Amino acid sequence: MKKVKTSIKVRYQETDQMGVVYHANYLVWFEIGRTAFIESLGFNYHDMEKDGVVSPVVDAHMYFKQPIRYGQDAYVETWIEEYDGLRTTYGYQIMDEEGNVAVAGSTKHVIVKKDNFRPVSLRKKFPDWHEAYTNAVGDK
Amino acid sequence: MKKVKTSIKVRYQETDQMGVVYHANYLVWFEIGRTAFIESLGFNYHDMEKDGVVSPVVDAHMYFKQPIRYGQDAYVETWIEEYDGLRTTYGYQIMDEEGNVAVAGSTKHVIVKKDNFRPVSLRKKFPDWHEAYTNAVGDK
Amino acid sequence: MKKVKTSIKVRYQETDQMGVVYHANYLVWFEIGRTAFIESLGFNYHDMEKDGVVSPVVDAHMYFKQPIRYGQDAYVETWIEEYDGLRTTYGYQIMDEEGNVAVAGSTKHVIVKKDNFRPVSLRKKFPDWHEAYTNAVGDK
Amino acid sequence: MKKVKTSIKVRYQETDQMGVVYHANYLVWFEIGRTAFIESLGFNYHDMEKDGVVSPVVDAHMYFKQPIRYGQDAYVETWIEEYDGLRTTYGYQIMDEEGNVAVAGSTKHVIVKKDNFRPVSLRKKFPDWHEAYTNAVGDK
Repeated sequence: MKKVKTSIKVRYQETDQMGVVYHANYLVWFEIGRTAFIESLGFNYHDMEKDGVVSPVVDAHMYFKQPIRYGQDAYVETWIEEYDGLRTTYGYQIMDEEGNVAVAGSTKHVIVKKDNFRPVSLRKKFPDWHEAYTNAVGDK
Repeated sequence: MKKVKTSIKVRYQETDQMGVVYHANYLVWFEIGRTAFIESLGFNYHDMEKDGVVSPVVDAHMYFKQPIRYGQDAYVETWIEEYDGLRTTYGYQIMDEEGNVAVAGSTKHVIVKKDNFRPVSLRKKFPDWHEAYTNAVGDK
Repeated sequence: MKKVKTSIKVRYQETDQMGVVYHANYLVWFEIGRTAFIESLGFNYHDMEKDGVVSPVVDAHMYFKQPIRYGQDAYVETWIEEYDGLRTTYGYQIMDEEGNVAVAGSTKHVIVKKDNFRPVSLRKKFPDWHEAYTNAVGDK
Repeated sequence: MKKVKTSIKVRYQETDQMGVVYHANYLVWFEIGRTAFIESLGFNYHDMEKDGVVSPVVDAHMYFKQPIRYGQDAYVETWIEEYDGLRTTYGYQIMDEEGNVAVAGSTKHVIVKKDNFRPVSLRKKFPDWHEAYTNAVGDK
């Protein structure tokens, strides 16, 4: 299974007064991992939007194991957990510099028309993505 | 079961170029709902932190049904789904002005010492909260 | 001069590990004040965008006097400092519960077409706003 | 004068429904530039905080020339504009991939004790920083 590892530099703005990264920011880091994963396949989300298509999140699950702090090096590892031609579920692990898992999670996405949020089939609309995604998930 | 409804005014800053509220912000709205819920029981999180205790999130689950847009009125409804003296799971529903559910979800929390993130028992450390939480969840 | 006072409830997400509200968030609070000011005149920014017009910031100035902390009540007071038919400069003061000024500042705005960011004259495009703004600033 | 150039990858989360980076985020990018500048001198802000000292912003000025959009490559260039042993004013330019200036600005900082926000002299408390800063600003 294809996995892509992306390095994250903690921003001071991302901390809260608990002295750790505020939990909602890990969802932004998931997005950074997802973007890098897509780019590693030779696509980019920006081009998809130019075609009038956006990719909202259907659900998100996050498991917080240990906090990440400012000054630590962090990484997000991203892969495709499931893909059926319509829905893509990405899996993520956020790790500290020693490889300890800080946060694990997943997000499920569809693609829809930007102007009316009506569902679009990734398989039909973007056959190249479909093929690459099928390979990425099947590649176990 | 005690439920608390809190009104949210969408901030322009919370939108993204998809023209809707960016998904991670709903986790911040959950926090707003949680804060209001706690205050409705006569407590506040700020006082807890003064005692050297913080309340990190253990896991979070979010289900996105339909987007909220800038200019809409939104509400978050909050309740306690589960409570066992150590862990509290809050449930949330974010609704638009017509009562349609936009986002549903939950977050599970523990309390820990601020300086070392060691677990603390809510039941033992804050018996008043324990009693109020037991009542709030049992109050079905 | 017309001034509008808006109450702000500090979000935990807005704090940083310094234990105070992260400075960039005050710019978001300025936006909240600006929105409330516009609504107090009977308009709303959302309707302006429906006409294909957006209102980017040209410059921003912020003076930080003392921090706001989680658990404090905060207020933002907003007025129009200057208006010439094209450019509007809003003035802001963020205050704590005792009326001490925490942050002072201003932002200057124009309006432009959403699709190409070409400048539009507020006076010509929205004569009602023009009249209300002229009155709001002249009303010294 | 020493200048440090740092590359920024626009996050989808940083856009707003105007289709551009939301203006307050540039203040976060200034922070990224400032952090990189400090590290280029062999120091880091994280170590300063370990000594019980934090460095709040005194004032901030931002001039928005043209928007940055998702999918563009951006850079922030950072230098020291003024330094007097107590106050440091950093200058910034945010540029797009073609070197056009998108945002220019500055932020002035002091250092204070974390527990009571009382001012501390950078010159006395951190003589190594003082020397490096004096050289960095004088190095014209």
